[in-house]
Amino acid sequence: MLSEGLLVSAPGKVILHGEHAVVHGKVALAVALNLRTFLRLQPHSNGKVGLNLPNIGIKRAWDVARLQLLDTSFLEQGDITEKVEKLKEVAGFPEDCADQERLAVLAFLYLYLSICRKQSALPSLDVAAWSELPTGAGLGSSAAYSVCLAAALLTWCEEIPNPLKGGAAASRWTAEDLEVINKWAFQGERVIHGNPSGVDNAVSTWGGALRYQQGKISPLKRPPALKILLTNTKVPRSTKALVLSVRNRLLKFPEIVAPLLTSMDAISLECERVLGEMAAAPAREHYLVLEILDQNVTGAWNLPQQRDVWCSGSERGPELIDMNQHHLNALGVGHTSLDQLCQVTMAHGLHSKLTGAGGGGCGITLLRPGLEGPEVEATKQALTDCGFDCWETSIGAPGISIHTAASLDAPILQALGWALR
Amino acid sequence: MLSEGLLVSAPGKVILHGEHAVVHGKVALAVALNLRTFLRLQPHSNGKVGLNLPNIGIKRAWDVARLQLLDTSFLEQGDITEKVEKLKEVAGFPEDCADQERLAVLAFLYLYLSICRKQSALPSLDVAAWSELPTGAGLGSSAAYSVCLAAALLTWCEEIPNPLKGGAAASRWTAEDLEVINKWAFQGERVIHGNPSGVDNAVSTWGGALRYQQGKISPLKRPPALKILLTNTKVPRSTKALVLSVRNRLLKFPEIVAPLLTSMDAISLECERVLGEMAAAPAREHYLVLEILDQNVTGAWNLPQQRDVWCSGSERGPELIDMNQHHLNALGVGHTSLDQLCQVTMAHGLHSKLTGAGGGGCGITLLRPGLEGPEVEATKQALTDCGFDCWETSIGAPGISIHTAASLDAPILQALGWALR
Repeated sequence: MLSEGLLVSAPGKVILHGEHAVVHGKVALAVALNLRTFLRLQPHSNGKVGLNLPNIGIKRAWDVARLQLLDTSFLEQGDITEKVEKLKEVAGFPEDCADQERLAVLAFLYLYLSICRKQSALPSLDVAAWSELPTGAGLGSSAAYSVCLAAALLTWCEEIPNPLKGGAAASRWTAEDLEVINKWAFQGERVIHGNPSGVDNAVSTWGGALRYQQGKISPLKRPPALKILLTNTKVPRSTKALVLSVRNRLLKFPEIVAPLLTSMDAISLECERVLGEMAAAPAREHYLVLEILDQNVTGAWNLPQQRDVWCSGSERGPELIDMNQHHLNALGVGHTSLDQLCQVTMAHGLHSKLTGAGGGGCGITLLRPGLEGPEVEATKQALTDCGFDCWETSIGAPGISIHTAASLDAPILQALGWALR
Repeated sequence: MLSEGLLVSAPGKVILHGEHAVVHGKVALAVALNLRTFLRLQPHSNGKVGLNLPNIGIKRAWDVARLQLLDTSFLEQGDITEKVEKLKEVAGFPEDCADQERLAVLAFLYLYLSICRKQSALPSLDVAAWSELPTGAGLGSSAAYSVCLAAALLTWCEEIPNPLKGGAAASRWTAEDLEVINKWAFQGERVIHGNPSGVDNAVSTWGGALRYQQGKISPLKRPPALKILLTNTKVPRSTKALVLSVRNRLLKFPEIVAPLLTSMDAISLECERVLGEMAAAPAREHYLVLEILDQNVTGAWNLPQQRDVWCSGSERGPELIDMNQHHLNALGVGHTSLDQLCQVTMAHGLHSKLTGAGGGGCGITLLRPGLEGPEVEATKQALTDCGFDCWETSIGAPGISIHTAASLDAPILQALGWALR
């Protein structure tokens, strides 16, 4: 297997409830988004270590012999800024190199050097990563990339075992190994973001859903997977400016805004309760099995985490979605594009809210179970007609996973350079 | 003067903030709406007492001699239901009489008999009332009618003095006399509504703005008058059903909805504070005088209550309006017609909220000072194009007032039968 290389994938994330409120100490629910980043690690004998990121047009390679001569002790000491400065020297960027490219390369070099230096010699290998996730849309694309890098490199270096055995098309690591992957992925995120919350890499590692409050991250037990539309309004916005505007509104109208944040907190808690209820009572009279997973990506999986149920408790789902969307509007982080998104989906009987910073960006739309394909298609078309990008996908998706080549779609393999072998 | 009869007018009302929350013990702000009901009381010598309500096509008359023979002791004892039953006998309704007609007639007979029976003999007179207010739209049209009836009958019977003196075109009663008018108007409202809160008649009597909480009504001191658009979506709704749906939502999601009501309470209090600030600092650097009053109705008035100012504090007005509209949506009492109203006015840079029960019905739009006529016209046209009725008017209007015929517009006088003399 190892001589054949590794294929891994990790999900993005969306905030289901609690964006903005989380900044003020309230609970947020982050869920794994089944738009995934795929990574292929391929051994080489050409004495090079290569990085190929077709989404952003990066194709770089370094001499392993040169890297082997580096004093890598800086990786174990000093703060992240110092490490990044040293890594920039190693990377040797051209002057006109874009920020996104720099950060992707630095995270790769950091994880490659940190994880592989424990080997007797740095390995010669090629890494190719390709993602279904749009970048810079608050969907955790950098975390999914870091998680894939960490999982593939740790497995390749046998720091953690390869869980793919027998005839399985895909598999996942044990909880202990996921802890190791997540720890390294968080370091990759620190290279990219400086001071990340750790939520994105945690969701991408564990999948499902997790609760986040005041720095404390706790995965929900067996969250159900729910079918959604993810829509990108493509309206650009500054997360920093939006967070600041909410803070200013709280300072200006404390008596009005503080209870609003309390109400948002209660929405997150109620949603957590409903998700727990859905997981606990899958056989309930009212539940319907959702046909939610993209067959191309996950069709061969049958993991206990994915009990894709919809029970009567979930009637509350759309109500919570609607209330929170109104609350976010009351906080002033709505946008006419998001109003349009809500109206278009409401015209098809579906409920939406913004996800993340708001002020444009992305929204999610719950797809009720039993919704027919043509209805979903009509909604997607209506959203596309607004100039939005729209994906039919799911939340509560599996976290970092390892795949056989046969279980992945040809276009994904092709994007990863598989056909070139 | 008395031989010439009396001309009075009283405003409608809108809820500025606190609808629905008020049902759960929170503060509501009710403001006088400068769409008015006009009433003419005219002495007669034909031995009849007549009621003419051209808006709803009522023209009725009764023999004073017959009424004089009635045992009217029932007016002073028993509950309101018994009184209404006796009054129905007096009125002598035809079988097919509409509810609205019955109630208007019963309120008239109740106030006529109750107030005038203290005279040596019941007077022969004609009462005509005509209103700018649509009925059944939650705008307090029945209260404005009751207040006009009470003021005119009390003045005619010299229970309170006629305040119209010298060359004044319009005048108002003293606070003491307004108390008397309001007390009788409330009795009229009880005949019409059974168990009214007393807010509508209080606003119509005092004008301006008042605060209402848990049965306690307190007028705001010298509230400013603000120019608005009042829009009737004409979407019918049941206030009772909407109030019940909010109660159910509170029961279903207490942790989410209770803080939302707290936030709505804080919006009412903040608005009260801002209105007070506007009244207290009319000379502030940032204030602008509003050109808000309909010259036809109030052009000749110059009362201290009407200091139509807009100061920097009022920047908060639109924000409060927007936040409360989102809160009302989160309570589930919004409607697509109201969303449309908000969007259409927002496209003209103006801020709107529903007023009253929601689920359709009416909305108010703040008109900033300095807004040019063509801009207002364009907004009104856009709202009319949606199929809505739209009035350019003001809130914080004067309460019950008495007028000379010369100060009122010809169409109003004509509607009251003045031209027929």
